[in-house]
Amino acid sequence: MQKVTVVKIGGNIVDNPEALQDFLEIYKDIPGLKVLVHGGGKIATKMASDLGIQAQMIEGRRVTDENMLPITVMVYAGLVNKNIVSQLQTKKVDAIGLSGCDANLILATKRPTDPIDYGFVGDFKWQDVNVSRLKDFFSIGLSPVFCAITHDGHGQLLNTNADTIASNISIALALQYQVDLIYCFEHKGVLKTLKDPDSVIANINQDNFVDLQNKGIINDGMVPKIFNALQATKQGVNKVCIKLAQDLLDPDAGTTIQTK
Amino acid sequence: MQKVTVVKIGGNIVDNPEALQDFLEIYKDIPGLKVLVHGGGKIATKMASDLGIQAQMIEGRRVTDENMLPITVMVYAGLVNKNIVSQLQTKKVDAIGLSGCDANLILATKRPTDPIDYGFVGDFKWQDVNVSRLKDFFSIGLSPVFCAITHDGHGQLLNTNADTIASNISIALALQYQVDLIYCFEHKGVLKTLKDPDSVIANINQDNFVDLQNKGIINDGMVPKIFNALQATKQGVNKVCIKLAQDLLDPDAGTTIQTK
Repeated sequence: MQKVTVVKIGGNIVDNPEALQDFLEIYKDIPGLKVLVHGGGKIATKMASDLGIQAQMIEGRRVTDENMLPITVMVYAGLVNKNIVSQLQTKKVDAIGLSGCDANLILATKRPTDPIDYGFVGDFKWQDVNVSRLKDFFSIGLSPVFCAITHDGHGQLLNTNADTIASNISIALALQYQVDLIYCFEHKGVLKTLKDPDSVIANINQDNFVDLQNKGIINDGMVPKIFNALQATKQGVNKVCIKLAQDLLDPDAGTTIQTK
Repeated sequence: MQKVTVVKIGGNIVDNPEALQDFLEIYKDIPGLKVLVHGGGKIATKMASDLGIQAQMIEGRRVTDENMLPITVMVYAGLVNKNIVSQLQTKKVDAIGLSGCDANLILATKRPTDPIDYGFVGDFKWQDVNVSRLKDFFSIGLSPVFCAITHDGHGQLLNTNADTIASNISIALALQYQVDLIYCFEHKGVLKTLKDPDSVIANINQDNFVDLQNKGIINDGMVPKIFNALQATKQGVNKVCIKLAQDLLDPDAGTTIQTK
């Protein structure tokens, strides 16, 4: 089975030109097929603020209202995506920037407004990823770079969680490839103690996850992330890694999440 | 020889949601292979103004300075491009939005700053179009939608004239396809008298072009456009048409420019 590495980067890299350069310099050396998924970071929020648009938040999550949607599309699919693609081209990675509407790659559904109306936010399942198109791109030597914008097939663009895009693309590809999913993280991995940056939990699986939760070692914020990672491995993804961007090529670094 | 239709739309369509819808509804029915090239219209200028950035102009041409470049990238490659692509997907055109950096499709050079510094503006020749990639997209059933952003291969994005992109893509494709290039225009065609919207000059070729210029019928603004169209036909493009968007499918409408 051919191998695919799916890497997700977020604000800590996208918002920092130097960190982004360092990341891309390492990313280019990942052997074999690879897919990059990027969030938009804080640029969209700053752009909205510069335009006098108040970013609405509900329970710490941004609401993508009709004023915010065009800004997220501009920043994610335009500014950030094309910047990454043009940088990768200098590093001989034949990248192609993509949103979910391009080649109908990701078909999402607008999130129901009940109980909370998050606005133009899209949800989708791994079955909604157009894997045959991804295979086409691989077969002609292109390296996909996804932003976190999808569409609903009726002309509506939708802001979509980048972690979910990375995860669902990985699960969808896992039917035909051996897929490793890497989340670039602000720490060396999942930590036993937040105060100790070296206290990385090397392996998490179905069995010790419950134990780590019961002992309060893995708490609130990390629980859904690891739950989703375990779900991905149950659905065929070989392994999910949570690590620093600079450790991307080190197979022993960070936290590895596998079913067994 | 397989046929490709290259269509260029500008501000009069891109800036008007209804006109864009009407155009796409007709564009979808163009038979065979097709490529769409769009300008950015006035949205980037408005966005700059909303952000308090003064658009610099020299001799009626916009200067793309370091403040303006990210705005053109956001608006052209993000907002306008993804809007068009998502609309085409609803019409069963399997569109893919592209800028010149994607798949290294168009390699441009920053325009020399002497005698006038237009900033981050890119120029390129038809030889700089990655035709083999376009063929790849055609072969897997994708319909390219280009915005007017290119790159220099060293990580620099460049604002580029959309007419030139349409023309150079057409010339590059003409080596392997029978290419018709259509410029959607605000009039029915090239007019004998601007006051008479029906006074369309049906055919322009190398011979009557000189005559039309000498008689003052074709003047200032249209001369370079038609000169470039004639150049394109000399370099293998089957014909160049200048017509209203609503006449896109009517082979007898508008002005047809051919070498002979």
